[in-house]
Amino acid sequence: MAEQKDLLERFYSVIPAGGIGSRLWPLSRADAPKFLHDLTGSGSTLLRATWDRLAPLSGPDRIMVVTGRAHRAAVEAQLPQLTDANVVLESEPKDSSAAIGLAAAILVRREPDVIIGSFAADHVIADIRGFRRAVVEAVAAADAGYIATIGITPTEPAIGFGYIHCGPRLDIPAAPSAVMVDSFVEKPNLVTARGYVASGDYLWNGGMFISRADVLLAQLGETEPDLLAGLTELAEAWDTPRRGAVVDRVWPGLPKIAIDYTVAEPAAKAGRLAVIPGEFDWDDVGDFAAIAKLHSGGRKSDLAILGENARVLADASTGIVISQTGRLISLIGVTDIVVVDTPDALLVTTSANAQRVKAVVDALKLSGRSDVL
Amino acid sequence: MAEQKDLLERFYSVIPAGGIGSRLWPLSRADAPKFLHDLTGSGSTLLRATWDRLAPLSGPDRIMVVTGRAHRAAVEAQLPQLTDANVVLESEPKDSSAAIGLAAAILVRREPDVIIGSFAADHVIADIRGFRRAVVEAVAAADAGYIATIGITPTEPAIGFGYIHCGPRLDIPAAPSAVMVDSFVEKPNLVTARGYVASGDYLWNGGMFISRADVLLAQLGETEPDLLAGLTELAEAWDTPRRGAVVDRVWPGLPKIAIDYTVAEPAAKAGRLAVIPGEFDWDDVGDFAAIAKLHSGGRKSDLAILGENARVLADASTGIVISQTGRLISLIGVTDIVVVDTPDALLVTTSANAQRVKAVVDALKLSGRSDVL
Repeated sequence: MAEQKDLLERFYSVIPAGGIGSRLWPLSRADAPKFLHDLTGSGSTLLRATWDRLAPLSGPDRIMVVTGRAHRAAVEAQLPQLTDANVVLESEPKDSSAAIGLAAAILVRREPDVIIGSFAADHVIADIRGFRRAVVEAVAAADAGYIATIGITPTEPAIGFGYIHCGPRLDIPAAPSAVMVDSFVEKPNLVTARGYVASGDYLWNGGMFISRADVLLAQLGETEPDLLAGLTELAEAWDTPRRGAVVDRVWPGLPKIAIDYTVAEPAAKAGRLAVIPGEFDWDDVGDFAAIAKLHSGGRKSDLAILGENARVLADASTGIVISQTGRLISLIGVTDIVVVDTPDALLVTTSANAQRVKAVVDALKLSGRSDVL
Repeated sequence: MAEQKDLLERFYSVIPAGGIGSRLWPLSRADAPKFLHDLTGSGSTLLRATWDRLAPLSGPDRIMVVTGRAHRAAVEAQLPQLTDANVVLESEPKDSSAAIGLAAAILVRREPDVIIGSFAADHVIADIRGFRRAVVEAVAAADAGYIATIGITPTEPAIGFGYIHCGPRLDIPAAPSAVMVDSFVEKPNLVTARGYVASGDYLWNGGMFISRADVLLAQLGETEPDLLAGLTELAEAWDTPRRGAVVDRVWPGLPKIAIDYTVAEPAAKAGRLAVIPGEFDWDDVGDFAAIAKLHSGGRKSDLAILGENARVLADASTGIVISQTGRLISLIGVTDIVVVDTPDALLVTTSANAQRVKAVVDALKLSGRSDVL
């Protein structure tokens, strides 16, 4: 118990709050990204809920948020306990390797044996206890030198998530459920997904990484030495008056690449990646079908309604309505429908077409109609 | 030819512009009834198109419009040639017997042998020549003492219209196609409608009535003597300074009843109703399915878009979008859809459910949400 406590005292949460969530347009926008929305109807934004999940683990003064300059005010409004030292602002998005890598590089200079855990700002987990149990084991695996991830035990053959293929069991006393990661696999088709679930050897990839900051940076440096050099230069200047000048010079040139390719997959190949199977619920709420499912509990007969001022009159209709206006929304005889009503854009589709929303966003970009993006 | 011209010189058009068009909510509203909308995409409101159809027949100075006080400004803006003498304002709606009856009573005092024709302000007819041919015959039948109606030769077994059962051929030289009306029948089911169309003995009831004003009033008086007495009192005061006082006293007490029951059906029973079969297109545009059909020409594969400032991005979607806002409307994978986007209310339904829109309006009335009606 004493050991676990000591380990958690070295733990630092990192929340990269970056992605817009294009599949959730027109709800999610450049100026109102997914993590700033309450998609669960809990009253909390996804970012705030992520903070509330992590604060009991690392303490509220040990949560670092990496976000775009444009979102600073909105993020600080959501997280009043967030201190200046824990805010890392990106002048432009550089994907997760740079975001998490910079947090690691800053934190390791402040605290050489720090263990960091990065958790997306826009995922949903209701079972905080189950989440906590998994993080505690992941921190122990990190202390043992592994880069650890948390894989979620699948409850269905989802085709919208990536999977982790588990390898042999590891022997880490404080992380009894840890197993080696054999490999990461991309989103499968339904037949393959069914096979994965039936085998019991696969977990959903929740994109959570827990490791010593120095171990993570070393792994990153093996794949992307220039990125590591840039991050190191930034970190050295970070807590000095030179920060601004160095950021302006170095950040724009950093490569834009996901941490999956620079850290997770190389570490898995090198036998350095451990996974803790998590028994808790988890969803990345990647599209409107996921939101609808979240609210209906899987029942097809419901109409879910989101929005503080939503006024909906529905007759023989199912699906989801998300209202950001005070307009009356009337549905008659439409099933599995998705209606997203915002002041300047309206989306009408079905859950079955939810993944195609991104294509519309791409079409809007191409046609120059970025005023609604 | 000379005789026809003489007859048309006695012809006066009456346009009752009253109904809101509840099945077209939220497009049609108490303050923006159906007849004030351009539902065909022609650039003209239905009222204006009705005027333009009638002006060549009766002359623009012989068209009387009966409408609600609240719509006076909008009606006059649509019809700049409408003179004060041709405007009849209702202080409250009293249905078609009072509206058309009052017009008849006013006109017969001004011009004893006047032949009036009443035509709804919110129907669609594209074939003006075919319409004209039918009206000319109807005027001749009226001159011969009949109350005449124009029945439209069905092009399909429609279930949304009432039908006219034709009786024996009449022998009116200037109205060679006139036949007796045997009876009126309510909206049939599909099987019955198919039988009607196959028999060749049935026409759609377009609700157009052409007769001498004195004949129409006499028929009305047989069924509703009190109504006739009220209308006569109003007409006597109409072109005098007493008009306002008499309207205030008499109008509120008039019975609310459709002209079908007070004139058309009793006249048919009495053998006084002639029908001219019209070969022209006609639609009462009773619901959104009718509008969609009007625009697609019956093709199921189209997406019709109405609205001057409509911005629509559609992918694999069919049906109709009516936009009264400048908002971007995006549709993905929705078929046969109806989307009506107005500043304060949004409707999402399908053509198949178009007739159910009225039930929503009724529900809104009951729940006190008349702000959007």
